[in-house]
This record gives sequence, structure tokens and C-alpha cells, in this order.
Amino acid sequence: MPLWQLTAGEAARRMAAGQLTSEAYTQALLERIAQREPQVQAWAYLDAECALAQARARDREPRRSPLHGIPVGVKDVIDTCDQPTQHNSPLYQGHQPSEDANCVAVLRAAGAVILGKTTTLEFACGGRLPPTRNPHDLERTPGGSSSGSGAAVADGMVPLALATQTGGSTIRPAAFCGVYGFKPTFGRLSFAGAKHYSPHLDTIGLMARSAGDLALLARLYRLATEEELAPLPVRGLRIALCETPMWNQADPQAQAALHAAADQLARAGAHVTPLVLDSAFDALTQQQDTIMQDGGRGAFLPEYLAHPQQLHAEFHRKVENQYGHTAQQMRDVLDAAALRRIDFERASADVDAVLTLSAPGVAPTGIASQGMATFNRIWTALHVPCINVPGMRDTNGLPIGMQLVQRRYEDARLLRVAASVAAVLDTREGA
Amino acid sequence: MPLWQLTAGEAARRMAAGQLTSEAYTQALLERIAQREPQVQAWAYLDAECALAQARARDREPRRSPLHGIPVGVKDVIDTCDQPTQHNSPLYQGHQPSEDANCVAVLRAAGAVILGKTTTLEFACGGRLPPTRNPHDLERTPGGSSSGSGAAVADGMVPLALATQTGGSTIRPAAFCGVYGFKPTFGRLSFAGAKHYSPHLDTIGLMARSAGDLALLARLYRLATEEELAPLPVRGLRIALCETPMWNQADPQAQAALHAAADQLARAGAHVTPLVLDSAFDALTQQQDTIMQDGGRGAFLPEYLAHPQQLHAEFHRKVENQYGHTAQQMRDVLDAAALRRIDFERASADVDAVLTLSAPGVAPTGIASQGMATFNRIWTALHVPCINVPGMRDTNGLPIGMQLVQRRYEDARLLRVAASVAAVLDTREGA
Repeated sequence: MPLWQLTAGEAARRMAAGQLTSEAYTQALLERIAQREPQVQAWAYLDAECALAQARARDREPRRSPLHGIPVGVKDVIDTCDQPTQHNSPLYQGHQPSEDANCVAVLRAAGAVILGKTTTLEFACGGRLPPTRNPHDLERTPGGSSSGSGAAVADGMVPLALATQTGGSTIRPAAFCGVYGFKPTFGRLSFAGAKHYSPHLDTIGLMARSAGDLALLARLYRLATEEELAPLPVRGLRIALCETPMWNQADPQAQAALHAAADQLARAGAHVTPLVLDSAFDALTQQQDTIMQDGGRGAFLPEYLAHPQQLHAEFHRKVENQYGHTAQQMRDVLDAAALRRIDFERASADVDAVLTLSAPGVAPTGIASQGMATFNRIWTALHVPCINVPGMRDTNGLPIGMQLVQRRYEDARLLRVAASVAAVLDTREGA
Repeated sequence: MPLWQLTAGEAARRMAAGQLTSEAYTQALLERIAQREPQVQAWAYLDAECALAQARARDREPRRSPLHGIPVGVKDVIDTCDQPTQHNSPLYQGHQPSEDANCVAVLRAAGAVILGKTTTLEFACGGRLPPTRNPHDLERTPGGSSSGSGAAVADGMVPLALATQTGGSTIRPAAFCGVYGFKPTFGRLSFAGAKHYSPHLDTIGLMARSAGDLALLARLYRLATEEELAPLPVRGLRIALCETPMWNQADPQAQAALHAAADQLARAGAHVTPLVLDSAFDALTQQQDTIMQDGGRGAFLPEYLAHPQQLHAEFHRKVENQYGHTAQQMRDVLDAAALRRIDFERASADVDAVLTLSAPGVAPTGIASQGMATFNRIWTALHVPCINVPGMRDTNGLPIGMQLVQRRYEDARLLRVAASVAAVLDTREGA
């Protein structure tokens, strides 16, 4: 197996055993990138010397954490003190922050190598699209807005990446790219130093090529301890199959894949029961959209005031509240989302995870659209932790993502369940 | 009247009329600071040349906004690109951000002068206290955590200042210092670039010496338009007098002042009715504390990992969750707060503002404590906009703050009511 195919966990094991240096591993990833980047275009910024210098420095030090010396890609709406953060915006071309975002500083303290910045939809919100392609089919979108993180991890350019999610920006690209994506409980992982959009929704996301790697990353952020992540047998696992109110917007192949996944889990001994969200959830997708859009009124005000001409029309719409959201409407949608959190709390109290689709189907053709967040919005609004588990595929072999969901603050439990589910659904996981 | 006593609105009027330059006004404030700072100690950083250079540059330009050329103090947990942001923490000594926080960038785009950085409790959270004194009585605290913003505005060192509030950090120092303080609706004014603590509560606050100045500042942030701020007669104003479940923790003089304020408003023609929050609100103060403390787990993790020895024990407690908050507890307190938001929405639907205390009494003696957030926590948890109106005093002439509250997203309406109420309660307002 070439070095670039290693999981972070395996690379870390070899480094701890003195069989691999961070420099050699980083070099292997840079070579993979040099080979694949012209097609995939996952990187907004990559300075090989900056990455190698970090790797060499880590090789000279005692190991600080299980991810010491491991390269991580960082979505380009998240500040890094040694590499520009450009937000895919002309206003931020060459922009060099002085500080790492909170989530990057934690990686840095743990001895990780910040490999480079991954492409994004402008401000992780709208406007300019990245040129990134889906490694499974270069004619298709990798999804967004964390396009580069999804594509780079999927393509073996980097084992781990940071993303963000305000609508569906972590789980959707993870699904389309066939990697593990994790949106933690809202608020548990600090959003400080990432480009803000909606203060009610903005969340840092994590991506990896195995459930174990996701867990390693989550441990750094103290979302789970090693003890809380002890293996869990699939037999007896209580899985709630949830089609959601958006079911008729899913492709037939995606619908079939969800039921096939549930069948596979049942055959492996899981107790699968249906979960039907009551009709109050029907409006939650639209309510999430209102909450999200309204966040743009304050988030993009500085750019709107300082550089109106250069700012994409989409951000003008948000700052000017061209949607016409009223005070009453905002209270109504926020309160509705809060009530659905309580409803979901009750509905999911007795299960180990809810199983649902991550996206309406496989990655759409073309890169002019990043696909729909149809199957993400309600979970983002509910503030619940979500994990995309890959492994299911359509008849052309393209990834169809399965999404696991738990109650808020049950991030550790969700990671544990995801590892068990992955062992059944993702044949690569057993490798 | 000496220049330093001008309101921002009056200074701006003179500047617009060509009767005053930003440089002359800034110079007058710097002289006031030079005279008073040895006693008051409101500034964490002040570079007269940096301030004057901005003022001269603004004098050479066309006016960009009603606050063009007006100096503003910025709490030292809010990033400024031309002056250090030190958080009252040894870890950030001399720390120079490359970017303005969102709320500072808006001021900058409007042509305001960033005069200097005002003192703060460490990270606006705990740990190290600032040396700041209350201008009304140097033996007393100005309150916190926005100590310097409250003291500097009160003492005529600057007409306007930015603050933050996660518990009671804007309204409390405004009350103790006898200035106008405004905590907008949670999420309406972006918190990007300020030091995060709790993602469910962190809010940028505004301070000024008149309701009109507060409104000018709020207009820059598009919390209100000029039309929405048209004068409102006190006659017929529907005011709900709310003692809150913490009433027995208020000093007798503060209790008397609230009722006296209500009587004054009633005599001026307002309809004052009592508002009793039902018993479900009794637990909200403690629930707010749990939500707030838990935010520290992620917020201070980078400092905890990179510099454990230099980080104050209080932040270790938060990162390590020494409080032992469980997942179930977090869901319970967040859901309880959300339900109270809905309750308050109903309870306050038919009033123009709720009138309550801003603090349990006058500023306590000494600077080892910044006083209690007892009368702030529930409102912060409710996400509602709050304004401190000064004018009431105890028998020693020390300020007792009156707090006005409206429903979420009714910031414009609250500012309008505050101006009317101020005309009755704050005799300086009529000047």
C-alpha cells in the first residue's frame, strides 16, 4: 500500500514505532497532490515547503498527541497563521491572518501538520464556486461548501481535513466524495476564527477516510475520550430508520440504498425500527433556511460597507435583508427549531442512532451546482451531531452517503455507533 | 461645555457643520484621558499618535456616516488591526491581530476613530481582574467584564464604546457607571473577531452617554433605521414592571428606585402594569450559568493545550468540565432556556418594553469583585435586547441602572422606547 493510502491512525502508529517520519509521509502526500491536483483542484493554497518545514520540526520533537506529525487540510474559510485564508473571495486575495482559528490552534498544539488550505464556496455561503472536481468522477461536483476538504480526503491527498457546516456543507461533500464526515453538536467545537455566517448554526466539521480516524480527530477536540469510544457490537444496536419529510426528493437509488443499509445492519444483528418525524418537522427545512439567510445581515456587513462593488450580489441580498424577514418571522422560526429539538429528543431517546440519507442521491453532474442540502438542513437546525458513513454505492459505483444522527452532546456515542455501522456498510473499513 | 463632554451626536453635528475637526475632538478626549487615567485606569492600550493619525485622515475625507470622525473605545477582547488585543491575559501580551473584528470593521468603514482598547476581565470571562475604578467613586468597581468601556464613557474619555455580554458584562457596568448600555438581540450583531466564550450567549454590546448616541451607533450596525427611531411620546407607552425572581437579592434602595422610576413614567402618562414571570423562570439564572460555563470547554481549549502553566485555574476548570455537566443536563438547560423564550414572547407581546433592574444595587465597594450579574443572566439567556437607562440614584448619588427589555429582533423599537424613557428618568438627557 502506498503511503498516501494510509489512514491517519496507521501513519501515526508507524510514526510512534519509529517506522515512518512525518516528513516522509508529508512528502508522499505532496507527491500524490502533484499528480492529482491538476484534475481534482482541491487546494486553494499549498506551500510544500511550509508543510515540510512543519513536518521536520515535528520529527525532531517528542510526540504530543496521537496525531503528532499527521497532515491535515483546512478549509479556506478557517484562519491559519502561516498560510493565507482567502475565502474564495476577491476581497481576501492573499489575506494572511495573524492567528490560527481555535480549531487549527488545537491541531497545532497536538503536533499536527497544517498541510494546506482546501477550496470552498465563497465564504462557505454562496457567490463564487470553486473549480474542484469529484475524484470518483471528474465530471461531477464534490459537493460543497467544503468541496476541497471532501475531494482531498477522498483522493488520498490528505488523511484528515477541517470543514464547516451551516446548512449541509460537511455532510453533503462527505457523502458525494465517499468519506467520513462529522458535524459535531452545535457549540461543542469552537467556531472562533472561522468565517461566521449564522450564529445559530455555524459548526466546524471533520473529515477522514475511516471512522477510527474521525474518532482520533474528535478526541483532540475533547468531543470524546478513548474510553467512551470502546468498540460496540452491531448485534443489539438500536437503529431508527428515518426517511424524513424530504423522502420524495431523494433519488430512487438513494432510497433503495438507505433501505439496503438498514437491511444489512439488521442482518448483522441490529434492531432496526422506523422513525417517522411528525408533521411539525415538515416546515423545518424552510425554517433553517430563514435562520441561515438572516445570519448574513450581520456576518457580511463589513465587506458590504467597505467593498460594495467587489462583493457578490448574493451577499448584498443577505445584508440588505432582501428576503424581507420580519422580527416576528425570526422569532417564529427560531422557536419552531427549538421546539423540534425537544421533539427530536423525545423521539430518539431510546435508540443508539438515527439512520437517514446524507444527500438526495449521488453527486450531480457538472460543477455549476454543488447539490442540495435537502437532507442536512433539519439536522443542522436541530444542533445534533451527524456522521456520514460511506460504503453504499449506486449502479455506477458512485458513493451514496448514509447519515447517522444522535441527540445533542452525544458526540462520543455517535462516533462509537458510527464505527460499528461502518464495519458493516463500508467494506474498506474492514481492510 | 468642554469638548470632552459633548455627546457623539453633538460632536458629529459640529463636524458636519465644519465647526469641529475630528483631530481637535480626539485631542480633547486624549487630554481628558491624560488627566483622569491615573485614577480611573480604563485603558488597556492607548496610542495617542495612532488615534490622532486616524482623526487627521478622517478630517481629509468626505464624511462616510453620521459617526465619521467620532472616537470609539473598544473592549480589549475585540480584535483591532492597528492596536494590540491582549484580553487581560499574560498569553496575549503585545498580541497584534491582523484583522479588525466584524464590529470594529463596521466602525472603520463608517469613518469612526478607534481611540484605544478598554480594560476587561480576563477573556471577558474570569481570572484576572482589571485595575479600573468607577469614576463616580474611585473606591468602587465600575462593574465588568466591560469595565473600561463603562468607566471611559462615564468619565468623558470617549463618547462611545464597544463591549460584550455573555452573562451581564455590558448592562452591569453601564448601570454601575451611569451610562447607556445596549445588548442587542443575540446574533443580530456579529460576534466574529471577539473572544468567544459561549456560542449560545456571546453578544457584542454598545455604550454611550445618551440614548440618541446609542441609536446612532445602532444605526451603523443596521439594528435600526432612522425612520424606525422616530420619537415616541411617553404618554400611552405600555411599560411592564418586572421585579423578576431575583427580587429579594436586590438592595432596598434599588428596589425603591425601580418603583420610583415606574411612578415617574406613570406620572408622565405611561401605562405601567406589573409583569410576573411564572415560576418556570426561577431556574433560568442557574440554567444560564450552566450554558455559559460549558461554552468554556471549547473556547479556551487552545490556550489550555498550548500554555497550561500560564493559563489561570478558572479556565482549566472550564476546559476540563470540572462542573461535571452531562449531556442530558446540557440538553435540559438549553431546552429550558428555549421554552422560556417562548413564554417571554407571550408574556411581553402587548407591551412597549419591560422595565426591570439592571443590577442588584449600586456598584459595590472595592475592585476585587465586579458585582453580580443577577439581573442580567435571564435576559441574556432569553436572547432579548436590553438597554440600561441611567438617571436613578441612591442617597449618595451613585447610579442605579434601570433596564428596558423588548422581544427578540425588536431592537429598533427598544431603542425608541429607551429614548422616551430616558427623557423622563435621565435629567441629563434633556440637556
